Amino acid sequence: MISEYEFEMENYMSFEEFDKFKKFGMGKQTPFIMIDLDIVARKYDDLRNALPQSDVYYAVKANPEVEVLKLLAEKGSYFDVATIYEIDLVLGLGIDPSRISLGNTIKKASDIAYAYSKGVRLFVTDCESDARKIAENAPGSQVFCRILSEGIGASWPLSRKFGCYPDMALEVLTLAHQLGLKPRGVSFHVGSQQYYISQWREALWDTKSVFDGAYERGIKLDLVNIGGGFPVRYNHPIPETVAYGAEIMEYMAEVFGNDIPQTIVEPGRYMTGDSGILAAEVVQISQKEVGGGRSWMYLDVGKFGGMIETLDECIRYPIYSERTGKMLPYTIAGPTCDSVDVMYEKVPYMLPEAIEEGDRIYFFSAGSYTSTYCSVYFNGFPPLRTYILQK
Amino acid sequence: MISEYEFEMENYMSFEEFDKFKKFGMGKQTPFIMIDLDIVARKYDDLRNALPQSDVYYAVKANPEVEVLKLLAEKGSYFDVATIYEIDLVLGLGIDPSRISLGNTIKKASDIAYAYSKGVRLFVTDCESDARKIAENAPGSQVFCRILSEGIGASWPLSRKFGCYPDMALEVLTLAHQLGLKPRGVSFHVGSQQYYISQWREALWDTKSVFDGAYERGIKLDLVNIGGGFPVRYNHPIPETVAYGAEIMEYMAEVFGNDIPQTIVEPGRYMTGDSGILAAEVVQISQKEVGGGRSWMYLDVGKFGGMIETLDECIRYPIYSERTGKMLPYTIAGPTCDSVDVMYEKVPYMLPEAIEEGDRIYFFSAGSYTSTYCSVYFNGFPPLRTYILQK
Repeated sequence: MISEYEFEMENYMSFEEFDKFKKFGMGKQTPFIMIDLDIVARKYDDLRNALPQSDVYYAVKANPEVEVLKLLAEKGSYFDVATIYEIDLVLGLGIDPSRISLGNTIKKASDIAYAYSKGVRLFVTDCESDARKIAENAPGSQVFCRILSEGIGASWPLSRKFGCYPDMALEVLTLAHQLGLKPRGVSFHVGSQQYYISQWREALWDTKSVFDGAYERGIKLDLVNIGGGFPVRYNHPIPETVAYGAEIMEYMAEVFGNDIPQTIVEPGRYMTGDSGILAAEVVQISQKEVGGGRSWMYLDVGKFGGMIETLDECIRYPIYSERTGKMLPYTIAGPTCDSVDVMYEKVPYMLPEAIEEGDRIYFFSAGSYTSTYCSVYFNGFPPLRTYILQK
Repeated sequence: MISEYEFEMENYMSFEEFDKFKKFGMGKQTPFIMIDLDIVARKYDDLRNALPQSDVYYAVKANPEVEVLKLLAEKGSYFDVATIYEIDLVLGLGIDPSRISLGNTIKKASDIAYAYSKGVRLFVTDCESDARKIAENAPGSQVFCRILSEGIGASWPLSRKFGCYPDMALEVLTLAHQLGLKPRGVSFHVGSQQYYISQWREALWDTKSVFDGAYERGIKLDLVNIGGGFPVRYNHPIPETVAYGAEIMEYMAEVFGNDIPQTIVEPGRYMTGDSGILAAEVVQISQKEVGGGRSWMYLDVGKFGGMIETLDECIRYPIYSERTGKMLPYTIAGPTCDSVDVMYEKVPYMLPEAIEEGDRIYFFSAGSYTSTYCSVYFNGFPPLRTYILQK
């Protein structure tokens, strides 16, 4: 008989699937991440199936592993890049620049010129000064303007950093038009790991107001970038991808009636999150006072070793140990000499009391926003290794 | 006539001093950090002067640049390391292992064995399981037990991650004694960037209770590691180092009477913080709505490019622009496609309205806990470069 804890994990990932990861990771020095490309492929197919009219632009920053990019390129994906460094990475794999959008609203003039010289012709913008820089350094290119979104219901916080209000977006696109650029439409992001599908509805209505305003000024917009935000399976159930697709398409029809624009979708976390398992070692288990108190579990991976999204305990990865039996609440911390490097304390993790120092611990859904966030040398720790699972 | 803003900066660093940095940085691609070794040397001397009875163990993690370590080694400093990687770094410079303490309470058995094999004989601990690992893998070594401190008044938050309560510390040291280790005393840390000197007093009284308890059990402790916490000059005045020294020595006398133990001091931030200036470029300045609102200033450095201590706006670096005239409040953000990468928003920075895209911006006191925290490849950005200022 399996315990409730094991049942919960079985519900997340079959023991057969997990076994494949576990065997592959045997003998490798922790901490490391294993990526299963089959899962990436399945996620891509699910999304294409859920939103058949949308072009998929993979947000490279989520996981820029070469094998991941190659697989997605073969499957026909487009690529959203954040910097000229990511442009070089993608082009280096033989991918055509027409399949790249430069999705960072923060760009030096020289970066825009570099992207243009490499053949990139699709840019996101959110302010007049950036539109001017694009017009000067990438003349005639296509632009979207990003609008602000509230981000309610997202696990990883969304700030006002990217985008502008719709009234400003209209001005930016009008300016872009005057400067000889091709204003294509609006982009938004409802917040990473978004549980509320209705957030797309709000953003689409805002988008429509920009489309209408532009139309009145003689500019016909025809493309909506509905961003990312599709969740991965952390520690509670999420709607099926196909449900997101169906609802978003319903909202499109509600908002745009018979004149439905082309759409682009920009998944990052969604595409690679579930494909990765992080293996760590329990370095130490201790109590702080005589007679008990909460147990502290220290691992050989922490906030500065790739788990930065545990900040404010935002992302709660499913954590698995092979031990069974009685469960205890643990505070979980990383190995560095930084007191901020505590991953979970406010809401502890229930894990088996039988766990011992030297045990392996697994973080599921750790394939996105982990390895590249690693610090270069904090406390001297080498960066997290990534392995691609071999069949 | 210089403006109030310039006067404030002049108060922080003389224009002559700043000019030296500025000239050295000319033509170098931002972002980068410049370290002035003269300032490191002065800080070391100040601390020796303020606490002449204490051995100085430099916390390597604050800034592990080889030139910094070499300078401190020449000046007679000891070194506190966090990991086996830092041990290798220090030994690689020809520094004797007797000048090293392994100050991380979180250690694998194999790490302790490695340190021991390299000649390290001084370890910090905070729990029974770690004491057992030390006894087994580094037999006969000297140990401190770290006790918890409240950290009130510290700018960088202190959690309960390191250390245990004094009652537990007594048990840990007793066990160490039984296992054949040499219990030397107690260590604590009052919190990084600590403004309240009286925090040392609290910790010393806790230390005394452990000394007394051990004495009753026949164990004579003789060493106190009073940690770090000495502040650097961020955006408000700090007491002189000599004032810290005088008050701490007064507390020692108050607490220990005629039987004052040997002391160790473990500065990290203090030693290198003020020696470094970070140069960044203004990438973009924008408004989010028509008709104004707060201006956003986007730089080519941010939270994941070395400025992680701007988390929760904890550390507020003095920021300097060479422009003058009317001042405006700015929200300041980094260049990555992560909405969390906003450095200062809750409390904006007052900076000249005349600042333009392409301008250089300087962060003062950026020599500690910056370059090594850099992400390896987030968004593709290369890690922050460090230059050692040449005469």
